[in-house]
Amino acid sequence: MQKKGLLRDVIQHLCCLPGVGPKTAQRMAFQLLQRNRDNAKALADILLKALAEIGHCQQCRTLTENTLCEICADPSRDTTTVCVVESPADVWTIEQATLFKGHYFVLNGHLSPLDGIGPDELGLDELEHLLAKGDVKELILATNSTLEGDATAYVINELAIKHKVEASRLASGVPMGGELEYIDRGTLSHAFKGRRKIE
Amino acid sequence: MQKKGLLRDVIQHLCCLPGVGPKTAQRMAFQLLQRNRDNAKALADILLKALAEIGHCQQCRTLTENTLCEICADPSRDTTTVCVVESPADVWTIEQATLFKGHYFVLNGHLSPLDGIGPDELGLDELEHLLAKGDVKELILATNSTLEGDATAYVINELAIKHKVEASRLASGVPMGGELEYIDRGTLSHAFKGRRKIE
Repeated sequence: MQKKGLLRDVIQHLCCLPGVGPKTAQRMAFQLLQRNRDNAKALADILLKALAEIGHCQQCRTLTENTLCEICADPSRDTTTVCVVESPADVWTIEQATLFKGHYFVLNGHLSPLDGIGPDELGLDELEHLLAKGDVKELILATNSTLEGDATAYVINELAIKHKVEASRLASGVPMGGELEYIDRGTLSHAFKGRRKIE
Repeated sequence: MQKKGLLRDVIQHLCCLPGVGPKTAQRMAFQLLQRNRDNAKALADILLKALAEIGHCQQCRTLTENTLCEICADPSRDTTTVCVVESPADVWTIEQATLFKGHYFVLNGHLSPLDGIGPDELGLDELEHLLAKGDVKELILATNSTLEGDATAYVINELAIKHKVEASRLASGVPMGGELEYIDRGTLSHAFKGRRKIE
């Protein structure tokens, strides 16, 4: 039997989700249409609602359904420290893992000239505007530890220097619980270069 | 940051998909709302359309948007052989793996009295009606090789005996490429009991 019609369309669209291949998409489609119709309806409805209502925070550019996200709207948070991240997911990760109480700035990507992602797409003019105001004292560059993330951090560091804001980059090195034997050479060489005195 | 509002709702609903935990759901939600808005819209739309239009084939009970599914509507297929399976996904699997050219009957589940799934929910009366008509000569019981699948096959076998239709069960044994050392005891004992002469 050829996969035809609506069912095939559902499966094809589910395939676009990250980490979902044709086999998983098929299983999902059958579950949604067979056992779980109420949930499928609810999922479709909430997705349409979210697409209509969720936009970017005017200040930090994370995803939110309000003008300002919760963090930017929270008066108890420190406005002098700004952590620059690549995606809204990174904000959640940092909030869960650390005690950071400053503000964020979400680039929604990294510099990638080949894909047409330049400073404008990352909102670097907004970031510069923020630095120019003089409120921010410290910038934490928490872009990914990849080639693109490093390049992006480098460019933002230049902005920080220009506006005389202190900028730092997340430490890179051996992950906690990591065994030297299994760590890639790049990480190990970074960890060697960045070695510190034991406190 | 507490996960609040619409974004949290989207993530919660994605969690109901099979094999999707909170972390994957988060990644999916961000991808849908961030990079892939057109696809998210298309997915929600097609899901709503499918929920409204896809129902069960009147003859074999598989999922289809028409009154009869493609297989039941195909005049070239053999109506004297009927393969009984647990789910519409099994129909696809058998169509892809075998040269079977008969019809199917989809139970949409297996007997499970504790979950309130009895003969009525599986459409066994429809199946009996079909057998009573006298067209069907052979019934292939291709329910899963689980306790519930076996029990379901047993009950349908009784129906077949009652209506004097030949019924067979899929062979169970060592899977192709399987090494004896890694095969569970139940399978091995089945394979022993079901040993055959080499043809």
